[in-house]
Amino acid sequence: MVDASDAVGAAAAAGVLARCRALVRPALADAVGGLHPWTGEMAAFSLGWSDVAGTPDPGASEGKGVRQALAVLGAEAAGADGRVAVAGAVAVELVHAFSLLHDDIMDGDAMRRQRETVWKAYGTGPAVLAGDALFALAVQSLAEAPGEHTGAAVRRLCDTLTDLVRGQAEDLCFEDRPWTGPGAVRPDEYRAMAEHKTGALLGCAAALGALLGGAPEATVTALDRAGRHLGVAFQAVDDLLGIWGDPAVTGKPVHGDLRRRKKTYPVLSALTAGGPAARELAALLETPGAAGDGPDAAGTHGDGTAARAAELVDRAGGRTATLEEARHHLAAARACLHDAPLTPGAAGDLDALVAFLLHRAV
Amino acid sequence: MVDASDAVGAAAAAGVLARCRALVRPALADAVGGLHPWTGEMAAFSLGWSDVAGTPDPGASEGKGVRQALAVLGAEAAGADGRVAVAGAVAVELVHAFSLLHDDIMDGDAMRRQRETVWKAYGTGPAVLAGDALFALAVQSLAEAPGEHTGAAVRRLCDTLTDLVRGQAEDLCFEDRPWTGPGAVRPDEYRAMAEHKTGALLGCAAALGALLGGAPEATVTALDRAGRHLGVAFQAVDDLLGIWGDPAVTGKPVHGDLRRRKKTYPVLSALTAGGPAARELAALLETPGAAGDGPDAAGTHGDGTAARAAELVDRAGGRTATLEEARHHLAAARACLHDAPLTPGAAGDLDALVAFLLHRAV
Repeated sequence: MVDASDAVGAAAAAGVLARCRALVRPALADAVGGLHPWTGEMAAFSLGWSDVAGTPDPGASEGKGVRQALAVLGAEAAGADGRVAVAGAVAVELVHAFSLLHDDIMDGDAMRRQRETVWKAYGTGPAVLAGDALFALAVQSLAEAPGEHTGAAVRRLCDTLTDLVRGQAEDLCFEDRPWTGPGAVRPDEYRAMAEHKTGALLGCAAALGALLGGAPEATVTALDRAGRHLGVAFQAVDDLLGIWGDPAVTGKPVHGDLRRRKKTYPVLSALTAGGPAARELAALLETPGAAGDGPDAAGTHGDGTAARAAELVDRAGGRTATLEEARHHLAAARACLHDAPLTPGAAGDLDALVAFLLHRAV
Repeated sequence: MVDASDAVGAAAAAGVLARCRALVRPALADAVGGLHPWTGEMAAFSLGWSDVAGTPDPGASEGKGVRQALAVLGAEAAGADGRVAVAGAVAVELVHAFSLLHDDIMDGDAMRRQRETVWKAYGTGPAVLAGDALFALAVQSLAEAPGEHTGAAVRRLCDTLTDLVRGQAEDLCFEDRPWTGPGAVRPDEYRAMAEHKTGALLGCAAALGALLGGAPEATVTALDRAGRHLGVAFQAVDDLLGIWGDPAVTGKPVHGDLRRRKKTYPVLSALTAGGPAARELAALLETPGAAGDGPDAAGTHGDGTAARAAELVDRAGGRTATLEEARHHLAAARACLHDAPLTPGAAGDLDALVAFLLHRAV
């Protein structure tokens, strides 16, 4: 798929996502339909199925459904029918929805996919409850799946849930650490955070599918590793877009992550590079205000400072290092997939999905 | 135990609780010790093990540990060694800690057990995360327990988690419903809420112990039912104490639940009783302000109004009905225990615990 044109790749990925969504949706809707009406309404809103009044909203922005697709493809890649993965697919989509919902509370993010976030629309307390309901439903729906592999699947999902919570804890703790010195966040710590926060669930999705499809342990592990590498690559691409992405495409302001003083891979790797640009960048980040363009009341940086910081990150090699990080983990993900004994059709679908997920940015 | 003196009964219950705590604590501490340091600190604070700086605090108010004791006694009642229940005991204590933590956020409660709640001490976002970490750890620690009954135990815990979240949703939704008319909360709806919010986890605790101890399904079900009845009885007693409890004992203001306009069993049953007292109570509750003693800015009632409401609830039969509700469900819980083939020693310990849990108020 890497040799095909962008348009062909995107169409292939869209086809894969649509096919997997059609397979999983009835069970996912069934599960959500069993919730208490109020939490069910918030859950449907968070999934992009309805508006804030609970009215079905086909125009709402729904997630891409990458995790459910990875679960289905994981089963198919192991030679099983994708239908055996449905309980796993439902679980990972619910976990993803739970984690977005609670992370938005913790991060104070008021908008997601061009709509208000659940806490903004319904209040913080109700949003905590809705997240808890999705969390409980995720584990329950997998635990109740028939079949001999359910126990192992639940254990794997539980390990992933603790990884996910750990990744969020790591991310939040990074905010309070210094930019430089012995307490600074090292790039390898950042990578571990990305693996926990993003990679673990992607890996779990594919691994659960394979597991429920009766794949040997080595295949399950290979798919899990591939997903984890994919998560780290995805985070690196997201970090690049957070600084240099086109606001018209990302929906976020130019240099957004620098304005918000986020500790991302480009900045952290630039700071550890040494040299004059790294030193100037450190001084800029450690100075609360700079050249009449200091942080506003929320501690964010203004236009000029953010633009200068972006330039310095680039000059210190942070942009190149992040691109290299993304390429390295994308290659590692593909190597995991290549080395595992996967059925060719599903392996091709997985590759299309991987390319799509990284926006062909690398 | 019902015939023994209060002091003897309390001492017996304290002995049972201490014995079960000693059995479960090492595994519980191990599980919490594996969390990310920050979430681990919040978890230890929420469990009453340490102060807000993370310093061990043996003087802190720890929970009674009723749920871990029920799990251990459930196994012993089935003729097994209490140690087989430890993974279940750890899971239910963690679920209980999670639910208190998140409920305090939703209810806006700033104090618990004479200390600040986690959201008050650490902030709302971190408290959401700490609750998620406890939730994930609860399921993970049970799912990883060895033994042939783990799968069934995990399914039972998951069902309980959805019950628990449903109960909290029901409780929150009651706040927005009218005091009278077709939309009013019926006593049976209130009972279902109490069973979900309080009874399900008590029942699950005892049932998990029996399940892990290899008890037949009928015994597991009987213990679950007993715990559910116990939860409803406990809620009824709690409601009585919330209106007529001695502030010196409860640590809450006199007529506290009436000041906060909480829809509790005494009030709901009084309102459905008919008669002049019920009509006057309805009028009082539905009038925002009354006789220069109206609600303050937070919508709570003042001294005079709350005292008058308490008198009307009593006169309309709400106090008697609630006492009857508590006695009925206590008797039902004991009947479940009596009818099950339990070992005598553990059955006696369970009875001591039941009496203690209800404060001998009934």
